[in-house]
Amino acid sequence: MTRLYNDPAEFAGEVLDGFVAAHQRWVRRVPGGVVRNTAKTPGQVAVLVGGGSGHYPAFTGLVGQGLAHGAVSGNIFASPSAQQACSVARAAESGGGVLLLFGNYAGDVLHFGHAAEILTQQGIPTKAFAVTDDVSSAPADQTAKRRGVAGDLTVFKAAAAAAEAGLDLDEVYRVAERANDRTRSLGVAFSGCTLPGADAPLFTVPEGKMAVGMGIHGEPGIGEADVPSADGLAELFVRTLLADLPSDITDVRGQRAGVILNGLGTVKHEELFVVYRRVAQLLAEAGVEVVDPEVGEFVTSFDLAGASLTLFWLDDELERYWTAPADAPAFRKGSLTPAPPAPEDLAVESAEQTVPEASEESREAARVVFTALEAVRKVIDGNADELGRIDAVAGDGDHGIGMQRGAVAAVDAAREALRLGAGAGTLLALAGDAWADKAGGTSGALWGLLLRSIANTLGDKEKPTAAAVSEGVAAGLENVLRVGGARVGDKTLVDVLAPFAETLATAVGESRGLTEAWGRAAEQADAAAKATADLVPKIGRARPLAEKSVGTPDAGAVSLALITDVVHGVLAERKGV
Amino acid sequence: MTRLYNDPAEFAGEVLDGFVAAHQRWVRRVPGGVVRNTAKTPGQVAVLVGGGSGHYPAFTGLVGQGLAHGAVSGNIFASPSAQQACSVARAAESGGGVLLLFGNYAGDVLHFGHAAEILTQQGIPTKAFAVTDDVSSAPADQTAKRRGVAGDLTVFKAAAAAAEAGLDLDEVYRVAERANDRTRSLGVAFSGCTLPGADAPLFTVPEGKMAVGMGIHGEPGIGEADVPSADGLAELFVRTLLADLPSDITDVRGQRAGVILNGLGTVKHEELFVVYRRVAQLLAEAGVEVVDPEVGEFVTSFDLAGASLTLFWLDDELERYWTAPADAPAFRKGSLTPAPPAPEDLAVESAEQTVPEASEESREAARVVFTALEAVRKVIDGNADELGRIDAVAGDGDHGIGMQRGAVAAVDAAREALRLGAGAGTLLALAGDAWADKAGGTSGALWGLLLRSIANTLGDKEKPTAAAVSEGVAAGLENVLRVGGARVGDKTLVDVLAPFAETLATAVGESRGLTEAWGRAAEQADAAAKATADLVPKIGRARPLAEKSVGTPDAGAVSLALITDVVHGVLAERKGV
Repeated sequence: MTRLYNDPAEFAGEVLDGFVAAHQRWVRRVPGGVVRNTAKTPGQVAVLVGGGSGHYPAFTGLVGQGLAHGAVSGNIFASPSAQQACSVARAAESGGGVLLLFGNYAGDVLHFGHAAEILTQQGIPTKAFAVTDDVSSAPADQTAKRRGVAGDLTVFKAAAAAAEAGLDLDEVYRVAERANDRTRSLGVAFSGCTLPGADAPLFTVPEGKMAVGMGIHGEPGIGEADVPSADGLAELFVRTLLADLPSDITDVRGQRAGVILNGLGTVKHEELFVVYRRVAQLLAEAGVEVVDPEVGEFVTSFDLAGASLTLFWLDDELERYWTAPADAPAFRKGSLTPAPPAPEDLAVESAEQTVPEASEESREAARVVFTALEAVRKVIDGNADELGRIDAVAGDGDHGIGMQRGAVAAVDAAREALRLGAGAGTLLALAGDAWADKAGGTSGALWGLLLRSIANTLGDKEKPTAAAVSEGVAAGLENVLRVGGARVGDKTLVDVLAPFAETLATAVGESRGLTEAWGRAAEQADAAAKATADLVPKIGRARPLAEKSVGTPDAGAVSLALITDVVHGVLAERKGV
Repeated sequence: MTRLYNDPAEFAGEVLDGFVAAHQRWVRRVPGGVVRNTAKTPGQVAVLVGGGSGHYPAFTGLVGQGLAHGAVSGNIFASPSAQQACSVARAAESGGGVLLLFGNYAGDVLHFGHAAEILTQQGIPTKAFAVTDDVSSAPADQTAKRRGVAGDLTVFKAAAAAAEAGLDLDEVYRVAERANDRTRSLGVAFSGCTLPGADAPLFTVPEGKMAVGMGIHGEPGIGEADVPSADGLAELFVRTLLADLPSDITDVRGQRAGVILNGLGTVKHEELFVVYRRVAQLLAEAGVEVVDPEVGEFVTSFDLAGASLTLFWLDDELERYWTAPADAPAFRKGSLTPAPPAPEDLAVESAEQTVPEASEESREAARVVFTALEAVRKVIDGNADELGRIDAVAGDGDHGIGMQRGAVAAVDAAREALRLGAGAGTLLALAGDAWADKAGGTSGALWGLLLRSIANTLGDKEKPTAAAVSEGVAAGLENVLRVGGARVGDKTLVDVLAPFAETLATAVGESRGLTEAWGRAAEQADAAAKATADLVPKIGRARPLAEKSVGTPDAGAVSLALITDVVHGVLAERKGV
């Protein structure tokens, strides 16, 4: 139970405030996250880590000498935006380029990947790398599909130590890749976590049972078992991980491994030590030499009762990086010479907003778009809890919260754009950017893309035509397919967006007005969203238990249908459009 | 919920095994606890900390350079024995004497105080000091009666840094005293903790409420309140602590303070940071300069949902010690030069047991004493859960477990004594020592004393007479009164022991045989135990809510009555004695 909060909507930001207040020796706050508060080493690769909030000490607690140069901190369980990552990267970089490290979740992959493109274009060479250590989230022949869990730490640590040792960006990337190849984790959960302000856990595990391989947001694992003894859990962990070795290890005898026994929230120190006692015995019996074991909390999920074991198979190079000294708020090792504090005036971004000139017709249309965005915000507000519940069936339950934040931010940005006299295209583009920035997560990225796509065809000069809107939606579908990687039938919002775009285009081609055409398409959208209940998710979900979600529609599909419907209402009232 | 354990009776030992396996760079195991695994500094005062298990990182996680030289580790929520403290002290001391530091709990005060006497007699100058930082456990004019909670850490840290700086034992003691004088804490709890193997929490707090000032074992606090917002809790903490200042501070403006925001178990990092955000604001508004704040887990209680705030009011000397570098498994600060590892062959105690010569009559009586001890073990075994439940009403719920461990250890020691040919006195004395050592806690100390007292009058030469037994019981009562500090009417085992001893003496004086006299006394004991239900505890309990226990007898009184009764059964079967 998470009990201590003020306004739940402000939680992630207030966590960051308090964290920074308590750790000023290590970190300072910048827009989007934190960076080291110590002087930079010119030419050193900046290693940034990041992801959603709610996993402390991941990610902000891992910033400090010998570890990350900065952390990009999203909302609760929602990936930060590309804009946040760019902001933190600009504050942290010191001429050697940037490596962005994060767990393999769709939203993080989208946003960090996008940030790497932007930064590189702007002259800061940047690479992005997703950690994939969770053996339960995909079979051994599809390791690239695995999620990142507590093995984040071994990859972060190795890459950061390599950067500290002076390696260049390509080499630091190689070390991250090598560390990830040699890291394996398995987790279990006994009960779900309750997010601030929620009155029920995000998910539950039957009393006396444990979910084997459950993800850190409650993503389905590979099965359920009775809660074992401490020794029994150690045996499950070690047996499973010794059966899923890196491809270049055939015999574990004589191998050396870093070990992380990680508590996810309410499994306490004492329990972890009893489990570790047996883990150490089992590894010794298998002939594995343990190097610098870590027993504690490294990647958590609020009050989730769970634990995970990570094995980091070392070679000489990786061992050097694993055992190198580090001094971050939540991870310290060895002894290092403290770097001098950073100068006070570390540049922080700020920008005065202006908008391009717009025609009167386009500014008139911008007011309609604003009204539509307000209606979207209301319908999302009213359905946020339900969307969260639907999403929690096979996902991480953040869809409602993410959409809510996105819609609120979009309306705020649109209001400001209206005040500045923006045309329809600019207003919608700024709304889309704000949505992506504040919502984070996969849906944030895709909605940002969708609104930007429509904005591009609207422009700020002409009165928006039905054809322009339809073209914009079609372009949005194309971009979402390209970037999101989902196809029709994968149980995502694509299952709604594709028929919506097609019906809209057909109706507009038959010379129907925008309101009528949109109405037809919205009906299609509603039916398509309901039909997703029959599908099995294909991406972003653990396969073995994905069937669990059959019978429940996809949350992203449902919210898209809700939005097309409410926008139709706005158009119908304004008939003239 | 504590889920991960093997045999609950082995839990504390297995925690220690796992902890040591994971932290070999810092600690090594010795009988009774752990000591630093780094080379000693000859002549340095050894600062030992200790108490019951279940509070990690207190106490073992605080052993390392710049912090404790060793930790004495008792059973779950039960103080370690004097014997354990002596063993750890002998392994840790390096010629400068020993300072024993612990929270102010009756059992710890007894055992550590006794250990200090023994060690000093043996040529190792030793002092014992109890931390009393919890403002909720006694009024400001009775600070000596307060319990020790997370403020343990500030006192440990200051004293250890003073030892590291080369101060002598008297001076290190003075620093501990000064640090304690200037440390204040307040805690709250939202729910109780569940001990390994228990099927219900040790205590509960009504849903939506918090217990203000509740102790780390669930000792009653000063009241109940609705669960506040994070800011509301920060305000309660700061307001209360700023109203309970050290006597030499009149105006907080311009003062400097170390700050510890401590999570007790399942209040998580993110929640603590949100609370700390407001704590920092409030202290800044009050003009207090915060020095090296710590936000995390320092003194815990398994899965207890609770938090506490500690203020450590610094002067120049205390600030130097608070900010000095340290490197323990769970507490690191600054940067220090690692000491070389300790030599492999650190002396560890072992002793070949022998017993004094005994007469045939005394050895015959020893067999009866053994049978009685076995019967005691059985009756305690059968009532352990119930005794724990009774104890939890106004105490820390460890009475059943402690008595169980004590009785088992006493029987084991008695069996060995029998094998070696011990007389009744020696057998009972060894059983008493084993009881005190393995049970820990207040009751362990008192039972050890009681059995030793009876043993002294039995001796190994004569056939034990009724008069000798009665004298032994009377001497036991006297010792328990002297050492334990309780009087008749305080709701402790004294309320049973006193009438039992009196009735026994009277009946023996009337020339009744031992069996008959004991039977009469046991009847008295049973009635007296029941009558403790009407009393209000006077010692070892927080006053304001102690009334809660009215209606429930005292657990120590009940177990004494059970034992006198079952011993009567053994005597009656053996009529001849």
